[in-house]
Parts: sequence; structure tokens; C-alpha cells
Amino acid sequence: MTLNNKVTQLLKAVSVVAIALVSFSVNADDKVYRLTLAETWNANTPILGDASKNMAKLANEMSNGRLQIRIDSANKHKSPFGVFDMVRSGQYDLGHSSSYYWKGKVPNTLYFSSMPFGMMSTEQYAWFYRGGGMELMQEVYSPFNLLSFPGGNSDIQMGGWFKKEINSLEDLKGLKMRIPGFAGEVFARVGASPTNIAPGEMYTALERGTIDALEWVGPAFDLRMGFQNIAPFYYTAWHEPGSETQFLVNKKKWESLPADLRAILETAFRVAAFDMYVQAIDANAKAWQQMLQENPDIKVKTFPDEVMNAMRVANRELLAEMAADDEQAKRIIESQASYLKTVRAWTDISTKAYLDISDSE
Amino acid sequence: MTLNNKVTQLLKAVSVVAIALVSFSVNADDKVYRLTLAETWNANTPILGDASKNMAKLANEMSNGRLQIRIDSANKHKSPFGVFDMVRSGQYDLGHSSSYYWKGKVPNTLYFSSMPFGMMSTEQYAWFYRGGGMELMQEVYSPFNLLSFPGGNSDIQMGGWFKKEINSLEDLKGLKMRIPGFAGEVFARVGASPTNIAPGEMYTALERGTIDALEWVGPAFDLRMGFQNIAPFYYTAWHEPGSETQFLVNKKKWESLPADLRAILETAFRVAAFDMYVQAIDANAKAWQQMLQENPDIKVKTFPDEVMNAMRVANRELLAEMAADDEQAKRIIESQASYLKTVRAWTDISTKAYLDISDSE
Repeated sequence: MTLNNKVTQLLKAVSVVAIALVSFSVNADDKVYRLTLAETWNANTPILGDASKNMAKLANEMSNGRLQIRIDSANKHKSPFGVFDMVRSGQYDLGHSSSYYWKGKVPNTLYFSSMPFGMMSTEQYAWFYRGGGMELMQEVYSPFNLLSFPGGNSDIQMGGWFKKEINSLEDLKGLKMRIPGFAGEVFARVGASPTNIAPGEMYTALERGTIDALEWVGPAFDLRMGFQNIAPFYYTAWHEPGSETQFLVNKKKWESLPADLRAILETAFRVAAFDMYVQAIDANAKAWQQMLQENPDIKVKTFPDEVMNAMRVANRELLAEMAADDEQAKRIIESQASYLKTVRAWTDISTKAYLDISDSE
Repeated sequence: MTLNNKVTQLLKAVSVVAIALVSFSVNADDKVYRLTLAETWNANTPILGDASKNMAKLANEMSNGRLQIRIDSANKHKSPFGVFDMVRSGQYDLGHSSSYYWKGKVPNTLYFSSMPFGMMSTEQYAWFYRGGGMELMQEVYSPFNLLSFPGGNSDIQMGGWFKKEINSLEDLKGLKMRIPGFAGEVFARVGASPTNIAPGEMYTALERGTIDALEWVGPAFDLRMGFQNIAPFYYTAWHEPGSETQFLVNKKKWESLPADLRAILETAFRVAAFDMYVQAIDANAKAWQQMLQENPDIKVKTFPDEVMNAMRVANRELLAEMAADDEQAKRIIESQASYLKTVRAWTDISTKAYLDISDSE
């Protein structure tokens, strides 16, 4: 080979290097990450079903298309309560669900949705982000190759629809009510008969008297179920004062993402969560207005003190038993109780005092 | 020069080309946008001064360094109430301040911070994002080459510190109180003498009796001012139930940014706002606990109904006058009143009912 040829070859090499460099830099900056998300809800579930869609859209926009998130709803993956396992195993990268659904699998996941007589939504956000709640939640999920983030709040849940008024603890004895989970255990301890019924069968069960009462969510979710047409008493909140959903993340997958995309995802979780809460407030307010227009005879009731106090005692007993059994549960319960005490003293002289004066009008 | 030397030179050239290509591709994909932000607060102002720092950090992380935001606090730019004009003119790209500060310049900016007897923080977020509030705010700011976004909530503001108890409307007559802005106008209409005093002089004015009372913010801000040591009565909220700050953006600058960076900025505003609100709840709760430990004799009081009702009437009269003068003001006032009516009916059967039962313990 002459030197001339060598120069020609070298020039070709320059082009190759140049092309390679450009391709390399494009790949480094614009690699598309395709993630999958399984949610507990169906695609058309209002509010709950919007959170992951909003999150995926935000993540896509902010990453300029580098994050592409495919959402599979329950009607697709057919396993609404399998989200924990599917994200843990890596079958899905992300999940949207609610922490207390995993109580049977990992008991201490119970504490990160909402607890009877516990914190309201804003108080609980303050506990998560400023009071050590996030750290405790990650401690519970971490051994399962999972990260968990607040995923949107459905606002205060009502105490439910009752066919008869509850005037005493005696009226609760044997009362058949659809109220699942830990709140159901509290309810059982004061003499009621809690049961779980699939959403699609609740209306008929209440109408036919198979059950005497049920709790679902709040006006935004209850309105189209039609309970207000067959049970005139709508009881106020005690058992889920600030139900938070959750975004679940497969930890290995998370660690494989570049830092900017992790920051984008974490922020998208946070905004989608906050937006869901705001959406729930708005939807509850509008649905409640509509309910009252259509059924002006709905009677809003609060359980008498005797009932509230008995449920409060039952709740404390159950928590004490769980704390005695498990050191981690004890720490979480104590963290929540201590934070609630501090934050509620402030809520009482601010929010409560303000709502009291607007009431006097 | 021998050919061999030429090849050596060519090889050097390859390196230069390669470096140039890398630099080029970095510039094309990774162009850095340097923005400046002027805030009304000093750099060390707690909570208020954290919002823009949090926002800038998030924007930087999510954009992988493409958004670099320099924050100038009031101690730097020396013009705390010049933020509107400096962002409008393009002297700064962004601002962090509070909408009601611009009332003297653009009267209808008043409505986007907090109104006496108006919406609480969460209710107001629902109005902004779901009830048409954002659209009305942009309509007010748009003619001034500005965009405005919620910038963080300082939580419910207390009614202030009073040296003497207020038992009747008569007790307000001639009462000298530091209470600026629109709330001061309401206060004047019921016979009090509102005044404005620079923050640094408030303590001495209250101590020496130059004023009889003052309002500042809430426990988190009031604690270190020391008012609790010289005025024993802490009155509950009426005049700023959910003070929202704002991020201001120069509209021309905004339109020059790529879509992904606009999405990143808008999300960073929203998360920083929400985080400031959560931080304020936490800080108020902890400061209130500390205040009570240090001054167990603080007396929390609510104005008697007679006073509240007179102020409510005065507030309505002033709003009616402003609505009569200005078609845009009328639409904003009506939008807020109508949304408040709907959302408060829900707040009353949810939040208020729940706080009432936790009170009965």
C-alpha cells in the first residue's frame, strides 16, 4: 500500500469515526426506556384510573419521549391483587395500587394507605415527606425488591350507607355490613358482622337485605352505584380519613435507569398523586351536590359518641396487639401516633377553628 | 514535511474532528438554558425561601443539567416588590412572590393568593386546577407578558396576636392593628385602625403599645418573632385561609423554551408548590407544639360571632363594590363564591365532621 492509499484509508476512517461518534452520542442521550405498569383498577375507573395515565403522560413529556410507559389495567392482566407480586418479580416494572391490599402477604404494608381514626390526607402527606413516613415505607418494601411512593389520595372516605339509623352500640350488634380489611376487624370487635362483597354485587345485596349497610368510598365513587336510593343514612368518616394509593417500582429496574429519568419518574409520581387528590376533592364536591339535588332526603349522620368511643377503643386494642407482635409494626404505629398528636393540635386551631366559624354563618 | 509526518498530522486532525463532533452533538441535544429568578423573600426565609430552591434543583435534575436557574433573593436584587415588573420586562425570566402584592398595579391579581372567609388551601387548589381558577389567573396576567402558577401554600394563617381579649365589636373600635392589604380594608370597615409596619419593627411596636395587635403568618413564622411573649391572645383564622404564593414567568422567554423543558418547569413549579404546603403544615405543627411548651399560657381564641359576622358583611360589601366596578373582577368573585359553596358543603360533611369526632375524645 502506498502512503497515498494509506491517507485515503485514513480519510475513510475519519468518516467512520465521525458517524460512530454521532450515533454513539444520539444513543447515549436519546435511548428510549420502555416500562410497563400494572394497575389494580380497570381502565375506565374514574380518578383511581386516571393517576397512572397522568403520570405516564407527564413522564413522557418531560423526558422528551425517552420514557414510554405502557399501562395494563385489571381488565387486561386479570390480576388486580397480583400487582405486588408482578412488580416484585419484574413481570411488570411499575404498579399502581393501594398498600393495604398486601396486608395478607406483608402485614406491615397495612399502615401506608389510611388507618381508622388516623391522619387526614394533608396530615399524612406531611408524615410521609416530613415525619419519617417515606423511610418507614421503604423499609417495609425494600426486602421485596420494591420501592413504594404515595400514588394519589381519594380524600376522606365516608362511613357508609345504612338502611337504619344507628343510635347506640346496641344497634350495631349483629349488623351485617360490607366493610373489608382492618376497619372490618375494628367493626367486628364492637359486635357488628363485617363482610366483603365484590363491588358488582353490593347494590343488590343492600337492596335485598343480605347486608344492612356498606361503605364504598365517597360521593364521587358512590354516586353512580346508586346506594343513596336504597339506604337513606350516610354516615361520616372514621375508618379511612385519607386513603393514599401507591406507585410500586421494581427496585432492580429502577436502579438501571439514568439519574435524570429517575428524577423525572419520582416527580411524575408526586404530581400525579397530588393531582389525584385535587381531582378527588373536586369530584366529591360535585357528586355530593348532585346527590343532594337528586335525593334531598339523604340524612348525613355521625355515629353517636358511644359508638365512636367503642370503635376507638377497639382500634387501639388491635394496634396494641400488632405492636406487641412485631418490632417494626410497633415503630410504625408509634411514629404515626406521635405525628398525629403533633399535627392534629395544629389542625384543630387552624382548619377546625376556621370550619367552625364558617359554620356559624 | 514527509508523508509520514502528514499522516501523523492527519491523525491529530481526526482527534480534533472527533472532539468537535462530540461537542457539536452535546450542544444539539444538551443545550443549556440559563434562567434567572427573582424572589420577594430573603435567601434565608424559611419555607417561602425554600420553594424556588427546590424548584430549581428539581428542574436541574430532571433536565439532566439543561435547565440552570440562578436565584436572586431580595437581599441581592433589593426590590422585593419589583418582582412583577422585573419578570414582565425580561430583566428576570422567573419570579417567586405572591399575587396580592400586585393589587396596586393590576387590581385583579388580588384574588389569587387568599381571600377573607374564602377557600382553604386544598379547596383553592381544586378551584385552580379543576374549577377554572388557572384560566382566570392566566387571563389576568397574560396582557402583561406574564404567566402565573401556584407557587406554594403557607397553610391557614392565624388571625394574629392581641394584647387584650376581643369580646365584642366595640372592643375593635379604634384598635390599632398591623394588618395590611385587603384584609386591612375589611378590618377598617368594622371600626378598627389597620396599619402596615415593616416586619423588623413589628415586635417593638407591639411591645411599646404603638399597636394593640398584629397578624403575621402562623406558628412556623411567628415563633421566632417572639410575639407570644408579649401578647397572650392568639386568634384563629378568618382573613387568609390558604395563602398561595406564585411562580411568575416571562411569557416570551417561556415560548422560546423547548416543549420538554416547559413540561419540566411546569411540573417542578407544581411539586415545589405542593412540597411547600406540606412543609408549612409540618413546620406549623412543630412550631405550635414548641410555642405551647415554652408558653403554656397562650390563649387560643376565636372572635365572637358578632365580630365575625360584621367582618363577613364588610367583606361582602367590599367584594360587591369591586364586582360592580369591573367585569373581570365580577367573574372571578363569582367563580370563587360558586366553587366555595360547592366544595365547602363537601368539606363540612367530610373534614369538619371527622375533626368534630376526634375532638369528642
